[in-house]
Amino acid sequence: MFKDDNKLFELMKEKLYSAVICDIMDEYGVRDNTMSLDIRPLDSQKTLVGRAFTVFAVEIHEKPKEPYKLVIESVDNLRPGEVLVATTNGLDKVGFWGELLSHGALNRGARGAIIDGSIRDAWKLTDMDFPIFMKGFNPLDSKGRIEVLDYQIPIKCGGIVVKPGEIVFGDIDGIAVIPQEIEEEVIKKALEKVEGENRVREEIIDGMSMKEVFSKYGIL
Amino acid sequence: MFKDDNKLFELMKEKLYSAVICDIMDEYGVRDNTMSLDIRPLDSQKTLVGRAFTVFAVEIHEKPKEPYKLVIESVDNLRPGEVLVATTNGLDKVGFWGELLSHGALNRGARGAIIDGSIRDAWKLTDMDFPIFMKGFNPLDSKGRIEVLDYQIPIKCGGIVVKPGEIVFGDIDGIAVIPQEIEEEVIKKALEKVEGENRVREEIIDGMSMKEVFSKYGIL
Amino acid sequence: MFKDDNKLFELMKEKLYSAVICDIMDEYGVRDNTMSLDIRPLDSQKTLVGRAFTVFAVEIHEKPKEPYKLVIESVDNLRPGEVLVATTNGLDKVGFWGELLSHGALNRGARGAIIDGSIRDAWKLTDMDFPIFMKGFNPLDSKGRIEVLDYQIPIKCGGIVVKPGEIVFGDIDGIAVIPQEIEEEVIKKALEKVEGENRVREEIIDGMSMKEVFSKYGIL
Amino acid sequence: MFKDDNKLFELMKEKLYSAVICDIMDEYGVRDNTMSLDIRPLDSQKTLVGRAFTVFAVEIHEKPKEPYKLVIESVDNLRPGEVLVATTNGLDKVGFWGELLSHGALNRGARGAIIDGSIRDAWKLTDMDFPIFMKGFNPLDSKGRIEVLDYQIPIKCGGIVVKPGEIVFGDIDGIAVIPQEIEEEVIKKALEKVEGENRVREEIIDGMSMKEVFSKYGIL
Amino acid sequence: MFKDDNKLFELMKEKLYSAVICDIMDEYGVRDNTMSLDIRPLDSQKTLVGRAFTVFAVEIHEKPKEPYKLVIESVDNLRPGEVLVATTNGLDKVGFWGELLSHGALNRGARGAIIDGSIRDAWKLTDMDFPIFMKGFNPLDSKGRIEVLDYQIPIKCGGIVVKPGEIVFGDIDGIAVIPQEIEEEVIKKALEKVEGENRVREEIIDGMSMKEVFSKYGIL
Amino acid sequence: MFKDDNKLFELMKEKLYSAVICDIMDEYGVRDNTMSLDIRPLDSQKTLVGRAFTVFAVEIHEKPKEPYKLVIESVDNLRPGEVLVATTNGLDKVGFWGELLSHGALNRGARGAIIDGSIRDAWKLTDMDFPIFMKGFNPLDSKGRIEVLDYQIPIKCGGIVVKPGEIVFGDIDGIAVIPQEIEEEVIKKALEKVEGENRVREEIIDGMSMKEVFSKYGIL
Repeated sequence: MFKDDNKLFELMKEKLYSAVICDIMDEYGVRDNTMSLDIRPLDSQKTLVGRAFTVFAVEIHEKPKEPYKLVIESVDNLRPGEVLVATTNGLDKVGFWGELLSHGALNRGARGAIIDGSIRDAWKLTDMDFPIFMKGFNPLDSKGRIEVLDYQIPIKCGGIVVKPGEIVFGDIDGIAVIPQEIEEEVIKKALEKVEGENRVREEIIDGMSMKEVFSKYGIL
Repeated sequence: MFKDDNKLFELMKEKLYSAVICDIMDEYGVRDNTMSLDIRPLDSQKTLVGRAFTVFAVEIHEKPKEPYKLVIESVDNLRPGEVLVATTNGLDKVGFWGELLSHGALNRGARGAIIDGSIRDAWKLTDMDFPIFMKGFNPLDSKGRIEVLDYQIPIKCGGIVVKPGEIVFGDIDGIAVIPQEIEEEVIKKALEKVEGENRVREEIIDGMSMKEVFSKYGIL
Repeated sequence: MFKDDNKLFELMKEKLYSAVICDIMDEYGVRDNTMSLDIRPLDSQKTLVGRAFTVFAVEIHEKPKEPYKLVIESVDNLRPGEVLVATTNGLDKVGFWGELLSHGALNRGARGAIIDGSIRDAWKLTDMDFPIFMKGFNPLDSKGRIEVLDYQIPIKCGGIVVKPGEIVFGDIDGIAVIPQEIEEEVIKKALEKVEGENRVREEIIDGMSMKEVFSKYGIL
Repeated sequence: MFKDDNKLFELMKEKLYSAVICDIMDEYGVRDNTMSLDIRPLDSQKTLVGRAFTVFAVEIHEKPKEPYKLVIESVDNLRPGEVLVATTNGLDKVGFWGELLSHGALNRGARGAIIDGSIRDAWKLTDMDFPIFMKGFNPLDSKGRIEVLDYQIPIKCGGIVVKPGEIVFGDIDGIAVIPQEIEEEVIKKALEKVEGENRVREEIIDGMSMKEVFSKYGIL
Repeated sequence: MFKDDNKLFELMKEKLYSAVICDIMDEYGVRDNTMSLDIRPLDSQKTLVGRAFTVFAVEIHEKPKEPYKLVIESVDNLRPGEVLVATTNGLDKVGFWGELLSHGALNRGARGAIIDGSIRDAWKLTDMDFPIFMKGFNPLDSKGRIEVLDYQIPIKCGGIVVKPGEIVFGDIDGIAVIPQEIEEEVIKKALEKVEGENRVREEIIDGMSMKEVFSKYGIL
Repeated sequence: MFKDDNKLFELMKEKLYSAVICDIMDEYGVRDNTMSLDIRPLDSQKTLVGRAFTVFAVEIHEKPKEPYKLVIESVDNLRPGEVLVATTNGLDKVGFWGELLSHGALNRGARGAIIDGSIRDAWKLTDMDFPIFMKGFNPLDSKGRIEVLDYQIPIKCGGIVVKPGEIVFGDIDGIAVIPQEIEEEVIKKALEKVEGENRVREEIIDGMSMKEVFSKYGIL
């Protein structure tokens, strides 16, 4: 099953962009499912698409009995086609995610990571085929500073709730999250809409006024 | 008349930079006419210069009778040499400006856009010869979320008031706005000052101390 | 003596990164000596390392008797191997640092600058071999807006106190500051740790699970 | 009809509080209809309840043709039982609402005002029987600084959308807004719940543990 | 043992204030152990002193299996002389603490509560002999919005780490936390210092200049 | 001379309020001379009026040679009729101003203090006849944390520049600063305007609509 998803995600990565996905979600009344604009791509050329594997972490103030226990479990439980989506609950003075974890996730077939928090080892991450979205950077290790308390539960990331298994789609414009019950239709219609936009663009480039365009096509 | 302006704007784009324009405005007592530092260029290699065509938009909470009416009018009324300068009055969770509007503006001869708010379609905008400055990105469409209420009125953008017709000059350092009554002199003197700075730079590279430089040239 | 430092700094620049330095500082109980994440590199490819030469500046509201006096003195007193570390005490609507000062600092053998505030002339600074970290950009000159009150005193920069002479190390992940009493050991151990991490990375790439890696190497 | 409302509002004012209204709305799935905590009562002893009369204002940067036109119209159109609910769209450096407008509103039978912005004349307002909730204070007049653009449209106030005619209920805990389609049931059930809470409170005061209380009553 | 503490706490409440406690802690090098100024007393006339019983809560996005489980346990485990000190990890749009919990805590002999978050039922809490410090108010219930994950662990509250058992002292000036290893000496010396300040105050009221006061007493 | 000022200030305190002063300043084109709304009165019943004696303080990170030197000098140099207006340049985690300094200032004939920063000893300050406006509270002493660098220079306080000798007027609505060159006329006209407002208020209370009021009196 996951193999098929990867094919679909590759198609989405090639043809779609976050804006067209949001336009279609609008038609289904899902009008506010994008993350806040302070979560940015490490490399704005890369598109990230996959199913959310959620991770919930918090700042800690004493050494845990088994440090790293659940972050290790999280990464070792990733499945092909998944994207690790983590919140640090506001702590950005720590590099929660880094190079070794990315290699571990990549080995498991994960497609990237979205961190509502900071990362480190960014200079090595830019070379990897593993798109990352995050709030910022910090060279401090997570040991004794932040701890994963749970995973695969609904979390708030970038101001919206993300549920395990939802498809996340991130590019330079930001990150859209598609509710599972409409994902099939949203993707299908988005692929169709991309074609339509190409015609509109050509008309405008050929000199049609915005008013004529809107009268004729009803989109903008 | 606008043709001439474009020649002037091309000259300014080639020779000037925002810092030298601010230095000359300082001499005229205009000491605070730069936008706030959270409005950044989409491409920091591109310089934007032109006359402000202002647009005033606000968040809405019910569907307008004629969606897009005034944003369409705004773009269709742009004239050669103008820069669309828009405020969304604090709403950055929507992509107020995007690719199709940019094509429309470019067709009208506009030279770029400054958005105190977010944009979308950024991946396509980077390839266009249409410099854009903005606060951030968001893939959500403006329909039913934000509406243009008026245009060509004084607006607040990046923390300062911009009046229709004022020359805006944006580059990697930020955006300066030149009051119309002194624009001719500011541009003339800025072109002259650029020459002087080259001499100072050479003296410093040749090893002159900052103290000697300041004694001799009175600038820094 | 400074010559030797430059050799050391070149070695550090080649082999180290801020994250590994922080990991070693953690072992010495120095757990919070990185600057806040809003101070970013102008060019994220460049690494900056050197001894802090601190500068303390504040916003002013009347013309000083001798404008620029202490900023000139600061730059003219820089010694080889030093990094100018300045705070503007919260004022970011002014370009405190710029091209001419950078040339002056470079002439004195300085290795870069960290500004808790804004810079200007960024388009020319990107071409220089002088790494700069800063909060933002603004084209306004510092004259009559901000004034250096003192230098080579402890200052707060990026949320932490930096003392004159401390080694600062900045790269894409952020900026670490090494307390002088442990600098020798930190650098030595960091150089050693870099080797160890390479082995771990290879094991992970070869498919070892995060759990096995952590059991075997005790690091992550 | 409005007379009856006033009787109902007086009953609500006497018996209810915002927390119990929210508890009942929770049962109807209306879980996020309270304003943000930066909108505070001028007098935390006063309870405000009535139907929203919404007002939409924005910062202006040139003198309007007819200053005050729509704010005057707003106040002169208030009906008994209504609460003026206004947003200034982020501008808090102006006293949007003040004493004279309050007297005008009171004359029309209005029950109070909620301002997502600042007020002035606070020293005289505290003596009036006209509860006011606001973000802050500023002595500057609204003339030439802020202008009402529309009224009786859905507006965003305190982070949530308020529609004309919805019942707003404000006390020291904050402001709840009751959607019109469930208002009758919410009020009825809230009046009932108040009785139940009294029993629980007595049990706790008599020494019952929280665990026993929750087992027995299912509320907390 | 707790009985004795209550006698001590009553003495501290009568004689001391947060500023003098901080002055003595300064002498022991504990220079940053006050909570941030956005945590304020519900009633600025009341002084709160007791041993911290810490509670760690987070926002949740799905209904927990056993709602309220750990908040109930927390309150039922409070001992005489304790102060409940809770963090909601940034969530202030919910009334985490309220009247019924306060009655429960009071029954257990607790002396008050400090909430890094919001409270509700404030109108009833002001009448109780149970001082509360908090960030703000919100009428929304905690059920399904926030959940206690643990208690009696070190937590961050008001920007500083508070450990179970530490004495917290809150009044109109803010909240000081006394590390356990120096608590005895700090309290003893603070009681002594209060006497000295009375003499200084009298001298100043009698007209002594600040310079003379400082020369003679060395304090200010 | 200062005696007379005190008479004037007492008259202003009795008759005027900050809003009417701002209205008159508007007529002179002084439209933005009120402090930001986060500077609040300790006691909102008290009015503060007097000439600004400005104090400029900054956070420090090493013990100064002569601690308190300039804060002592400042207070000992206050003259009757003056108001100490101080900025801490953003540091609010310290009680910059407190009881002893207030007694010292009161002895010198000062009328109150405005602190763009925090105060301590608030519980004793509320009883004094010495109105204080401030951003917040903190029990930490200023020693070794903050130091006065200069006084009687233009400073930025509450977002605006205040010059030594300017009249500041603070009440529950906020703080207005009157430029010295127009102070005589502003005060005279403000005293006149107060009379006019009384008539308008009566008309409204008698039932005149806002529209009629504005037509007849031209004010609101």
